[in-house]
Amino acid sequence: MMEYKRLKRELVAKGSIIDYYIDTMQIPNGNTEQWDFIKHKGAAAMVAIDQDGNLLMVRQYRNALERNTLEIPAGGLNPGEDMKTAATRELEEETGYRSEHIEHLVDINTTVAFCNEKIGIYYATDLIESKQHLDENEFLKVERHSISELEKMIYAGEITDSKTIVAVLAIKDKFGTNGIA
Amino acid sequence: MMEYKRLKRELVAKGSIIDYYIDTMQIPNGNTEQWDFIKHKGAAAMVAIDQDGNLLMVRQYRNALERNTLEIPAGGLNPGEDMKTAATRELEEETGYRSEHIEHLVDINTTVAFCNEKIGIYYATDLIESKQHLDENEFLKVERHSISELEKMIYAGEITDSKTIVAVLAIKDKFGTNGIA
Repeated sequence: MMEYKRLKRELVAKGSIIDYYIDTMQIPNGNTEQWDFIKHKGAAAMVAIDQDGNLLMVRQYRNALERNTLEIPAGGLNPGEDMKTAATRELEEETGYRSEHIEHLVDINTTVAFCNEKIGIYYATDLIESKQHLDENEFLKVERHSISELEKMIYAGEITDSKTIVAVLAIKDKFGTNGIA
Repeated sequence: MMEYKRLKRELVAKGSIIDYYIDTMQIPNGNTEQWDFIKHKGAAAMVAIDQDGNLLMVRQYRNALERNTLEIPAGGLNPGEDMKTAATRELEEETGYRSEHIEHLVDINTTVAFCNEKIGIYYATDLIESKQHLDENEFLKVERHSISELEKMIYAGEITDSKTIVAVLAIKDKFGTNGIA
């Protein structure tokens, strides 16, 4: 129905986790516009559900928001890594738990107006204690919360991270407040 | 628990809807790192529920994803505009409907690792037919879908936009599949 044509994509700057481009677009009425494009390598996240139906969450400082946030474990893809492998790896690195029972939950694009970031969200049950191994420059705290508690925090504005809200609401939608424990 | 200190914030480039900065951070172990920061002015979105319990959705081309998407009506804040006013304005501009019954649903930060974008999500009932007035360079198509249909599209990967998934799952969570019609 709509005919858009990209006439040019110009790299403005390469960052540590994103690259910034300016796209010159021809839009359906024939006009030309310059649009921002932020290129991201993709990420993966894991809902980890313990034997009591609680979710393993990480609290960490987010410079972009200038505060600590409560999120599900997640991280960027390593080169050549698929989403499920990345989610599984991030779970173990950030929380010290692994699992052999991992299923796909849902995929999201975080902010479609200017960025191609895609996050694959998975869920893990039958957690096995392993060993946390954070990057040298990574600092976070692991917490456990029930789905009901997390839901209250979402509507109270205490959890605002989009992937975390999608994950909690999707798990509740599929399995109810007791999760699948 | 964590002591981060921003030593410097340098503007790399100003874009049309975002600005790109590089932050020099001192992290808790004393090391220094350079982190990307994308500054966004904020946005607002509206779940509009008609008398049959269907949601008014917009289909539009998204250059960042190189495809059309199905989303709830949304847009960036005008200077000085509050979230609720922006959500109300975007609903009318994009769909041609307005409402005098608007409530807050939930707020999200789209991608907390590098961007401060916040989207306030509201919901409207008792829709009143008005007039669509798109920007000169804006092209979109309005569709109506039930909450059950939208939910299927989410888990099938046909809807991936984070604000839209949060909105649909939160409306279902609060009011069930019939919405609040």
